[in-house]
Amino acid sequence: MNYQEKSVEVHEALGGKLAVQSKISITDKEALSIAYTPGVAGPCKAIADDVRRAHDLTIKGNTVAVISDGSAVLGLGNIGPEAAMPVMEGKSALFKEFAGVDAFPMCLATQDTEEIIRTVELLAPGFGGVNLEDISAPRCFVIEDRLQDLGIPVFHDDQHGTAIVILAALLNAAKVVDKPITTLKVVISGAGAAGTATAKLLSCMWKVKETGTCVGVHNIVVCDSKGIIGNHRDDLNETKQIIAGLTNKENREGSLAEALVDADVFIGVSVAGALKQEMIQTMASKPIVIAMANPVPEIMPDEAKAAGAVVVATGRSDFPNQVNNVLAFPGIFKGALQIRASRITEEMKLAAAKTLASLIEHPTADCVLPDPLTPGVADAVADAVAQAWNT
Amino acid sequence: MNYQEKSVEVHEALGGKLAVQSKISITDKEALSIAYTPGVAGPCKAIADDVRRAHDLTIKGNTVAVISDGSAVLGLGNIGPEAAMPVMEGKSALFKEFAGVDAFPMCLATQDTEEIIRTVELLAPGFGGVNLEDISAPRCFVIEDRLQDLGIPVFHDDQHGTAIVILAALLNAAKVVDKPITTLKVVISGAGAAGTATAKLLSCMWKVKETGTCVGVHNIVVCDSKGIIGNHRDDLNETKQIIAGLTNKENREGSLAEALVDADVFIGVSVAGALKQEMIQTMASKPIVIAMANPVPEIMPDEAKAAGAVVVATGRSDFPNQVNNVLAFPGIFKGALQIRASRITEEMKLAAAKTLASLIEHPTADCVLPDPLTPGVADAVADAVAQAWNT
Repeated sequence: MNYQEKSVEVHEALGGKLAVQSKISITDKEALSIAYTPGVAGPCKAIADDVRRAHDLTIKGNTVAVISDGSAVLGLGNIGPEAAMPVMEGKSALFKEFAGVDAFPMCLATQDTEEIIRTVELLAPGFGGVNLEDISAPRCFVIEDRLQDLGIPVFHDDQHGTAIVILAALLNAAKVVDKPITTLKVVISGAGAAGTATAKLLSCMWKVKETGTCVGVHNIVVCDSKGIIGNHRDDLNETKQIIAGLTNKENREGSLAEALVDADVFIGVSVAGALKQEMIQTMASKPIVIAMANPVPEIMPDEAKAAGAVVVATGRSDFPNQVNNVLAFPGIFKGALQIRASRITEEMKLAAAKTLASLIEHPTADCVLPDPLTPGVADAVADAVAQAWNT
Repeated sequence: MNYQEKSVEVHEALGGKLAVQSKISITDKEALSIAYTPGVAGPCKAIADDVRRAHDLTIKGNTVAVISDGSAVLGLGNIGPEAAMPVMEGKSALFKEFAGVDAFPMCLATQDTEEIIRTVELLAPGFGGVNLEDISAPRCFVIEDRLQDLGIPVFHDDQHGTAIVILAALLNAAKVVDKPITTLKVVISGAGAAGTATAKLLSCMWKVKETGTCVGVHNIVVCDSKGIIGNHRDDLNETKQIIAGLTNKENREGSLAEALVDADVFIGVSVAGALKQEMIQTMASKPIVIAMANPVPEIMPDEAKAAGAVVVATGRSDFPNQVNNVLAFPGIFKGALQIRASRITEEMKLAAAKTLASLIEHPTADCVLPDPLTPGVADAVADAVAQAWNT
C-alpha cells in the first residue's frame, strides 16, 4: 500500500487529523461557573475595556488561522476548498507538533480576491496570525499584500516559507563550494509564488542603513516557461514586471538553457524535468542545484550529480538536503506570536534563514539543512525571529 | 475572590480555554508522509472526486463553527468580537466536554448582516454545522433564516436552545401542577431572540399530518416593554408582526400585569425585576414561573414562591430547576452530525425538548429538568435528534 492509500485509511479512521481540546475539564459547577457563566463575564469585560488583553485572556495569543481557497493545492491544482482540507489540517498539525502553536484550518468557498481579503479581515479578532496557503498566483500576492496592515502577521507560506528555506540551503551550499553568496550567479526557474518570493529575498538580504539600499545576490535571472524575464519582454504581468525590475541587471534575453551558461546556482520551483544534464554541464564550476518541483523534481539528484552538480537539494524526504517549509513556518509564527509582532518583516525572514543555516555547523554536499524532524529547530527559528522584530 | 475575578486569573494562566490537537503524532518520516506530503494527496483526490467524502476524511464530520459578532453577549451587550471570545471559547469547550463535538470559536469584525451571512457561507466547507451565538435581534433572525439552505445545520442557540430547554421545563412543570400543556395560558415577557423562538416552538409542538395544521399551546401572549403584542399595535417590527400572527388569538391588549391575570405560566426572557409578587397573585391556581433574565431573574425564586408560584425555574445554577442551554446544544449538534443532517428541523427541536423532559421520571416542583452536569444527557438528546431527522 502506498502513502496515498495509507493516508486515506488513516484519515478515515481518525475522522480528520485535528481535535479541539478544552483546557478546562468541566465536571463540576465551579468549573462551569469559571469557564462559562457567570465567571466568563470577567475576561469579557477586561477585554472590552482594553482590547490588547485579548492576547492574554483568549486563544488569540497562540492561535494561527490556516486559510486556503483550494486553488493551488500541492501538485493537484485547483481542487476546491473541501478537497484542500487534508493539506490545511496537516499544516495545522505540523504547527502544533513542531512548535506548540494552535492552528486551525479554514478553506473558503470562494476564489474571489476581494472576498478572501475581507474574510481574513473579519476573522482576525480571534487569531494571532494568518498563514495563507495554496492560493494561486497572482491572487496570492494581492491578498497577502493588502492584508499587511491587519495588525497580526499575514504570511503566505508558499512564497516566503519556501524562499526562506531555499536561502538557508543556499547559504550553506555556498560554503560547501567556497563561493561568497553575493557574487553567485543564480538562475531561478519558475515565476510563481515561490520563485518570485525567492528572487525578492535573495536580492535584498540586508539593507545598508545609511543609504537604505539593498545588498544581496547581485546576479539573479528568473525564467518562466518563455525564458528569461526582463524588460525586453512585452508579455509580463504585474508580478513579472516586478521581477524584471529586481533581477536580470545585465538585461539578458533567451531560454533557460542560455541563462544557465556560467551560472553557479539553479533554483527550480517549476516542473518535473525542466533541468537537463546538458544544461548543468554548461554551468560554472561546482554547480549548486536546488530542484523543488514536487513530487518529481526538475532533475533527479543522481542525474544532477552525474552531470557535475556538487550540491543537490530537493523537496523530497527520500534524498539528502530536503528543502521543506516545515523547517520555517512553525518557528516563524511561534516567534512572531511570542512578541506579538504585527507582521513578518524581511528582517524576520532573513533571521529565520540564517538561523536554519547556522544549525549545520559544518555543511557538506549532503548536509546543507537540518532534518525537519530535528528537535529544537522551531525554537531556534522562533528565538531569532522574535529578536529580529523591530531591530 | 468572586467567579469573574477567578475566571480572569484562569483565562490568563491558560491563555484562553482551547487548544488544537493533532490526532497524529508526527515524530518520524512515515507519520509526516501520511499526515502531510506526499500521502495527503490521497484524501485530497478522494474528496475532489466526491465531495461527500469530506465528512469521512476531514474534521468536517465532527466540527462545529461557533460564530458571533459580539453584539449581544451575555448581559453585557454589544462588547465587540474580541471581548466576546471568552464566551465563544466557553461554548466550544462545552461542546467538547459534554458531547465530544469539536467546536471552534470565531468572532467576526463586522455587525453587517450581509457580511455575516456571506462569511458563514464561505466558511462552510470545513464545518459540519454552525452555532450562531450572541448576535442581536432582529439581525439574528435574518442571518439564521437566510442560511438554512447551506447544506449544514445553522442553529442560533440563543433562540432555539433556550426555547427547547424552556419547553422541556414546561412539559414537566405542567405535570407537577397537573394541567395539560396545550390548555395552559402562557405569558412570555420579552420579544427578543429567546422570546420569539419560545413562542414559535410552544405554539406548534406537532403538526397534524392530515391537515398540516399546528397543535401546541393554544393560548400564548407575548409582551415587550410596551405591553401585549397583537394586531392592535402599529409599532411592531417584522419579527413582532410574526409573533402577533402566531399568538394572542383573543386579541388582548394591555400591560404585562394585565396579560398575567388568570395566566398559568409566566416565561421571562426579559429583564431583572420584571415580575412582581402582586402579578403572580393574580395568576390562575398553581402558577408556573420560568424567570430567565441573567444574572438576576425577573423575580427571585423565594419571592415567587411566597407569592404562590408552585414551580419556579431560573437560568441560575444556585437555585433548583436551572434552565441551561447546555442541556440542549451539545446533544443537538452531536445528533445532527451523526446523521449528517442538513438542518435542525422543528421535529428535532421538539424531540430534544421531550427527551430532556423524559429524563426526569417523576417531576417535582424542585426538579423539572436534569442537572446540566448529569452524564448521558447529551447522548440521550443526540439519539432523539438523530431519530427525528427526516421522520
